[in-house]
Amino acid sequence: MDHRLKDLLLRLRHEKLDGLIVNSEANISYLIRYPSRDSRLLVSKNKTVYFTDSRYTEEAKKWLKGVSILKADGTALKFVADTCHKLKLKNVGFEEKHVSFAEYRGLKKELKNRSKLVPTRNLIEDMRELKDPQELSRMKKALAITAKTLKFAGKVIKTGIKEAEVAAKLEEFIRSAGGSGPSFNIIVASGPNSGFPHHMPGHRRIGKNDMVLVDLGVDYRGYKSDLTRIFFLGRIKPSAARIYGILLEAQRRAISRVKPGVPLNDIDAAARDYITQKGYAPNFSHSLGHGIGQEVHEKPRVSGKAIDVLRPGMVFTVEPGIYLPGEFGIRIEDMVLVTRKGCEVLSGAINK
Amino acid sequence: MDHRLKDLLLRLRHEKLDGLIVNSEANISYLIRYPSRDSRLLVSKNKTVYFTDSRYTEEAKKWLKGVSILKADGTALKFVADTCHKLKLKNVGFEEKHVSFAEYRGLKKELKNRSKLVPTRNLIEDMRELKDPQELSRMKKALAITAKTLKFAGKVIKTGIKEAEVAAKLEEFIRSAGGSGPSFNIIVASGPNSGFPHHMPGHRRIGKNDMVLVDLGVDYRGYKSDLTRIFFLGRIKPSAARIYGILLEAQRRAISRVKPGVPLNDIDAAARDYITQKGYAPNFSHSLGHGIGQEVHEKPRVSGKAIDVLRPGMVFTVEPGIYLPGEFGIRIEDMVLVTRKGCEVLSGAINK
Repeated sequence: MDHRLKDLLLRLRHEKLDGLIVNSEANISYLIRYPSRDSRLLVSKNKTVYFTDSRYTEEAKKWLKGVSILKADGTALKFVADTCHKLKLKNVGFEEKHVSFAEYRGLKKELKNRSKLVPTRNLIEDMRELKDPQELSRMKKALAITAKTLKFAGKVIKTGIKEAEVAAKLEEFIRSAGGSGPSFNIIVASGPNSGFPHHMPGHRRIGKNDMVLVDLGVDYRGYKSDLTRIFFLGRIKPSAARIYGILLEAQRRAISRVKPGVPLNDIDAAARDYITQKGYAPNFSHSLGHGIGQEVHEKPRVSGKAIDVLRPGMVFTVEPGIYLPGEFGIRIEDMVLVTRKGCEVLSGAINK
Repeated sequence: MDHRLKDLLLRLRHEKLDGLIVNSEANISYLIRYPSRDSRLLVSKNKTVYFTDSRYTEEAKKWLKGVSILKADGTALKFVADTCHKLKLKNVGFEEKHVSFAEYRGLKKELKNRSKLVPTRNLIEDMRELKDPQELSRMKKALAITAKTLKFAGKVIKTGIKEAEVAAKLEEFIRSAGGSGPSFNIIVASGPNSGFPHHMPGHRRIGKNDMVLVDLGVDYRGYKSDLTRIFFLGRIKPSAARIYGILLEAQRRAISRVKPGVPLNDIDAAARDYITQKGYAPNFSHSLGHGIGQEVHEKPRVSGKAIDVLRPGMVFTVEPGIYLPGEFGIRIEDMVLVTRKGCEVLSGAINK
């Protein structure tokens, strides 16, 4: 049995659960190492069952070993409930963040009191927090494609081109360079648009002395990257240069604190305190970063409220930003891996 | 007040609700005519409040009129609950399909019994089922871009090119032609891969006498298209030609039945019965179609189990398919609009 499933079964035992219904696609993909779509997974000591509909069963049968596949057209909940019953599962966990209230009600009805439904939270997300070598190698591959894409962006970004055209070209580049696609909608924010932290690329044409913020990520075999760089065209405004310098230093301070045992809010504070000192506290309106892996945002949280401590194998972004609405905004984003002794900046080779 | 909000308020009154918490992004976007991301909306007689975090508040303020905007960083549920209290809402509906069990629990806790939470289903989805002229014009625009993209596909698809390369080129074409992007991951399935109804484009190179199934859609200002065409390279196998003919006739029969008052399962049956007659019932493994609009799959359902009747303004796909695993698969997909007298094939101008 795959050690991921073994690990989960151990966790279920601690929770006094006989089985777990998994709804999150990322969690299912992680557990069975197969890109799951429109499916549910039931994990129990004696059997793991993958429920999907007829569109996907043939393909799933081709790839999945050691997992039973059940074609569950129409009323998947009934299939799941009946399987719980057949396997004699008394206490069955479900992922309360990934199950809608309607599905919970439907499942409860189908189970007809034969099994008890128990809400669980983060059981698999916790496992995914520490990356194994296979996962790291995919994330590094995603970053290598990101590096190439940013280099290409340097050529594409010119006075007169529309933001949306830049985004389209970068997206095509990612796919032709071997990525499955961008890991989220690429942000290309030029001039004053960069003042909005999550601007969607539009019809604005890039101007002569514009600053262009590019925030993009690559999906490589299910694993994501996420990086932000600024492209300066023509003259750099002194105010922009100053803020850029502040952010570089804030990021350096945060990264230098990364090592096992340090609480995550310390990392956020290292950057935020420096930005506050410089008078820009209200303009740094988001948390310092976020864990990343199969999802662009996953555990650990990297914010002022995150009290978990760093452990080797965690991967997260460090992305301080300062936004001056109506003027411009700058964000610098890198990805770091917590190592046994400190940290590795996974995106360290990518020019800032 | 926008008539969409007015219409919803009327529906709330019928349900004896003082307000509704809207979680679905498509539903929010529909109600406030603004592309919502990471937000919630509270609709009540006296006030409509849009809750989003600091990444989006500036941009939302720029565009939204007549809607209060509340910056809800971190604990959005508390903001929502407090607003329900301030507005003195006694019975508050929530969308049970779009609210996780965890969010339901959190909301209930924050409300502290000051308001009662009532599960609702399809209140806004029902409104979205009938398209208005603005929506239709966006869908037609999405289809016009789809037509161009398929024409372009005819040039790109050649012996030797990889499926994934074709998909990347089509995606870039969609964006450069004015679409916001594809409305779902483009399916390019060549040769035996077409036997899987939802094959993901991979590294397979298109062969000399291959059949290539392309299923793609375009997002134009939030509205989607969805179309499938087959490209034949070189010689056409007699078995493929025969099945293609069966599907054309099945589709024609289904479309000819479309007019107001007909139950949706009749439409499915018109195609399915013909395919069954020809001996391919087990190979037509999905329902005939699906409603489409702001989401690629929305109401109405178009399956053997759908007992709703057709009404003018409904838009849905008609896509019979026959899949021979290990050999090939064919699907022909068009989009139809129910009109007062019958139907209009919105994609009628696109060659089959």
